[in-house]
Amino acid sequence: MPTYNPPVRDMQFVLHEVLNVADELKALPAHAETDADTINAVIEEAGKFAAEVTFPLNISGDEEGCTLDKATHEVKTPKGFKDAYAKYVEGGWPALSCDPAFGGQGLPFVVNQCLFEMLNSANQAWTMYPGLSHGAYEALVAHGTEEQKKTYLPKLTSGEWTGTMCLTEPHCGTDLGLLRTKAEPQPDGSYRITGSKIFISAGEHDMTDNIIHLVLARLPDAPKGSKGISLFVVPKYKVKSDGSLGERNPIFCAGLEHKMGIHGNATAQIVIEGATGSLVGEPNKGLQAMFVMMNAARLGVGNQSLGLTEVAYQNALAYAKDRIQMRSLSGVKAKDKEADPIIVHPDVRKMLLTAKAYAEGGRALQIFCTLLLDKEHNHPDEKVRKDSGELVALLTPIVKAFITDNGHIATNACMQVFGGHGFIKEWGMEQFVRDNRINMIYEGTNTIQSLDLLGRKVLGNNGASLKKFGKLVAKLVEEEGVNEKMAEFINPIAGLGDQLTKFTTEIGFKGFQNPDEVGAAAVDYLRVAGHFVFGYLFARMAQVALREIAAGNTDPFYVAKLQTARFYFAKLFPETATLMRTARAGSKVLMDTDAALA
Amino acid sequence: MPTYNPPVRDMQFVLHEVLNVADELKALPAHAETDADTINAVIEEAGKFAAEVTFPLNISGDEEGCTLDKATHEVKTPKGFKDAYAKYVEGGWPALSCDPAFGGQGLPFVVNQCLFEMLNSANQAWTMYPGLSHGAYEALVAHGTEEQKKTYLPKLTSGEWTGTMCLTEPHCGTDLGLLRTKAEPQPDGSYRITGSKIFISAGEHDMTDNIIHLVLARLPDAPKGSKGISLFVVPKYKVKSDGSLGERNPIFCAGLEHKMGIHGNATAQIVIEGATGSLVGEPNKGLQAMFVMMNAARLGVGNQSLGLTEVAYQNALAYAKDRIQMRSLSGVKAKDKEADPIIVHPDVRKMLLTAKAYAEGGRALQIFCTLLLDKEHNHPDEKVRKDSGELVALLTPIVKAFITDNGHIATNACMQVFGGHGFIKEWGMEQFVRDNRINMIYEGTNTIQSLDLLGRKVLGNNGASLKKFGKLVAKLVEEEGVNEKMAEFINPIAGLGDQLTKFTTEIGFKGFQNPDEVGAAAVDYLRVAGHFVFGYLFARMAQVALREIAAGNTDPFYVAKLQTARFYFAKLFPETATLMRTARAGSKVLMDTDAALA
Repeated sequence: MPTYNPPVRDMQFVLHEVLNVADELKALPAHAETDADTINAVIEEAGKFAAEVTFPLNISGDEEGCTLDKATHEVKTPKGFKDAYAKYVEGGWPALSCDPAFGGQGLPFVVNQCLFEMLNSANQAWTMYPGLSHGAYEALVAHGTEEQKKTYLPKLTSGEWTGTMCLTEPHCGTDLGLLRTKAEPQPDGSYRITGSKIFISAGEHDMTDNIIHLVLARLPDAPKGSKGISLFVVPKYKVKSDGSLGERNPIFCAGLEHKMGIHGNATAQIVIEGATGSLVGEPNKGLQAMFVMMNAARLGVGNQSLGLTEVAYQNALAYAKDRIQMRSLSGVKAKDKEADPIIVHPDVRKMLLTAKAYAEGGRALQIFCTLLLDKEHNHPDEKVRKDSGELVALLTPIVKAFITDNGHIATNACMQVFGGHGFIKEWGMEQFVRDNRINMIYEGTNTIQSLDLLGRKVLGNNGASLKKFGKLVAKLVEEEGVNEKMAEFINPIAGLGDQLTKFTTEIGFKGFQNPDEVGAAAVDYLRVAGHFVFGYLFARMAQVALREIAAGNTDPFYVAKLQTARFYFAKLFPETATLMRTARAGSKVLMDTDAALA
Repeated sequence: MPTYNPPVRDMQFVLHEVLNVADELKALPAHAETDADTINAVIEEAGKFAAEVTFPLNISGDEEGCTLDKATHEVKTPKGFKDAYAKYVEGGWPALSCDPAFGGQGLPFVVNQCLFEMLNSANQAWTMYPGLSHGAYEALVAHGTEEQKKTYLPKLTSGEWTGTMCLTEPHCGTDLGLLRTKAEPQPDGSYRITGSKIFISAGEHDMTDNIIHLVLARLPDAPKGSKGISLFVVPKYKVKSDGSLGERNPIFCAGLEHKMGIHGNATAQIVIEGATGSLVGEPNKGLQAMFVMMNAARLGVGNQSLGLTEVAYQNALAYAKDRIQMRSLSGVKAKDKEADPIIVHPDVRKMLLTAKAYAEGGRALQIFCTLLLDKEHNHPDEKVRKDSGELVALLTPIVKAFITDNGHIATNACMQVFGGHGFIKEWGMEQFVRDNRINMIYEGTNTIQSLDLLGRKVLGNNGASLKKFGKLVAKLVEEEGVNEKMAEFINPIAGLGDQLTKFTTEIGFKGFQNPDEVGAAAVDYLRVAGHFVFGYLFARMAQVALREIAAGNTDPFYVAKLQTARFYFAKLFPETATLMRTARAGSKVLMDTDAALA
């Protein structure tokens, strides 16, 4: 059976030593009181919850899955899920970073980020139930009427109710412009909603009394395509004016998908048979409102893979130290044993370090990005809010796609460390691989992320956002350019920064003549950008580690951090060489293939 | 539901147009009569069997899995598996390339190769039941006594009985030197065998009356480690001197593993409680006998991933043409539709072409290698036999690791083409990913393959085998060096050949000083070597295609082949740039990590 130890030390390192989160938060009136001790205390408690309450349900939840009673349309979640959720609500965890105006604790997003990393390590399928609520919460905060806020936000904040995002339909996922669900205005100002949705995560369950569905649909007079989509809130049970539950709304779970992974989460087919909903935001502007949910969800999906990368790494490391098999190529290491532990083998170390570097880089990026989110929402200076928002927008597709692709590489590498035992369910490793696999797909496939990054976030503003990030890198290069000890970390990112600028201009120019050039380069481009960001963060982490060591700090944590950073730059970062070459190979070899793909 | 069309045309292209198999076989007395028509007829029938008999059982077999009756130790295979096996036996398929001396049809291995590619596409889990028999057959042909051959080979040839390889024990997989199963000599010349085995594929089932286990065990006086292992044949039912079945041998299935994939195959825990066996080959020389099975199995595992790559590709291609979603970046393509089919998107094409190129490269390599196997076994000239054997030995770890890793990339890419539908069981795509995943592990993990390649097959003979392969490449370069049209295919392999020579010398030198350098470089090295081999074969395929087009042949097959080859060299082959860089980054960043991996 796998084990899980919350990586509290590494979180604290990133939060306090690398990013000086407490100082940064002092500038935000909403969080000026949130000191390092508070953050640390919450994270430690959160880690206990994840390790003790939801982690033990991970394998059993995968084995049991969810079951639908077709007569009542009710879904039973795996044994223990409901109780764990009750404990979660009891502990006040849903409210952690919600607005005190709705009963929230008002802690910064960076704290919630750490909570969710650990929940995802412990049990991604379970975590999606409370996780989806956050998207619904954000959409209603941003676009809901006062009435809607009053009705739904306190219950979503307390966790008494959960939320969903009902977007996908059988014939449209990526292309929501094609959706057909109808919303007909009623004389009382409400809407009568009819249609079919699929792939609705946490779409039905037995954990709460009510489920608040946020549903994309079309008004009768709506323009075609994505400009004719509106967002509605459709509760499972209608809510009376006193807040108590009224009649059942005809929004039903008609089926559960049988999936590769996340078996513990109910992926529902939802049939809406004239359910009553209310409009969120303006008519035909649903896609904008939806993007509020979606951006939160994309950062959340990256966090899922970060969690799985960490837990897979921890278990592979333990196994590699325990399992004896063969002798080291460079001479016997464990003389008292029949064979050496497999951690003596270079490639086993490579697999472990790949996962470790992707976990630590991912953690640094997620926290870095969430701190920017806190600034975007709460900084008193408008320019800081705007700049932070721009960087979050740039980094969101990287968080989503780069961290989930890395999660795929890492969970597979960790499974491989187990040899045949990795393929067997009882060790839990293959589940990490299966659960991670959806993260590369949902909330916009990783190809869609790459088009968002290159097409919209980079070329869309002539590289202005990328330049903003580049300035952070340039500042670090300037600071440390003469520090010989930092050269091994600084030179690669300085070099890649120069190449990336040229490379971006080049693609922009080619894309102007032929937009397929953008589509052909985008996936490679995103991985290059991902390494640029990881490289920057690893250099900053190395900077802190070197500083501590120079100051006489003997905590082996800092030596470990340097070793991981060195490995990262030597074995993972050089992937950029091939990626730029293949991106430059252009679109012709892809598009001039009608005979091959006949 | 997925579909499968046997890729007969592409097989025939490789067999006849690229490799001139029929001409090559004329030189082998055993196969001199095997003409192209015979080969084609057999392959077409084999394709029908795979598509019509075993493919329809693939998803149902995955869902149902195998069940063990703990009281009787009998295993029930999924519905339809037993009938399909009966049809397989009835059709004479087990005997295809077996020796006529034991009732075989005596066809060359290349034909059996094509049969098994298609069976693997259709249903890997099912195919492992007859597949494992081949290893047992080979071991007994090479090392069995006359008595053993007479008793077992006709039944394995006819398929009336199947075989297994009982190697792994709970505490040892890679490191068979640690195994503990005991074999005690009995006065009658037999051995009494006691021990526990795990991960025994096709280890128990209801398809045949008897199962012939080949078991590794230790004699009482055996030296420690891998030099003290002997091989035994242990039938499930003892065989009387008249060939009829005698009493049940106490070699039992004690449990079935719950696995990520290949659910239809019984992965058995085997308990041996004083079973009667007979020695195969010499005492303490079991590992050599075992390697006869193992090498056949390694080529077979590559073939499993080739099969899955092909079937995944076919289904992703069909979906990409059918599914409409978004408009092409370069302008509307399907004006009459609400959206364009997703095949218009460059990255969708990239995913499809990746799978296609890995399928076609893999097929060419498997057939190339199997033809060498035919020559190794049957060529009248000893030098040709020896040279062929040497090349097979060099290529075996590449076939196993490169094709299975490519299968991982390809099946995941094809699943990704389906978006959310790829994660759902009903489309069958996620099963291809799960089934493929074991191929990277069993019969020697891909890391073990890389050490076998670099340590034993390349550095072990100072690069002599690699030079032999290099001569084939040099010959092609010489032939086509002045052909402008071939430049795009020839230049990359000529360049890589030069680099690979330097690179190999470099690693050899570093490895001499520090053997961990070999372990650190091996996995990257194998992928570079894999691209060198694929590059050679794609260049040869392009050569034929260009020749046909120049001669006025208008079959679009040749244009398709050139497009795939171009894609391969532009988008996949350049991976070698990064691989050589990361391999050169050496072992220090891996081994000097005790703090990081504490």
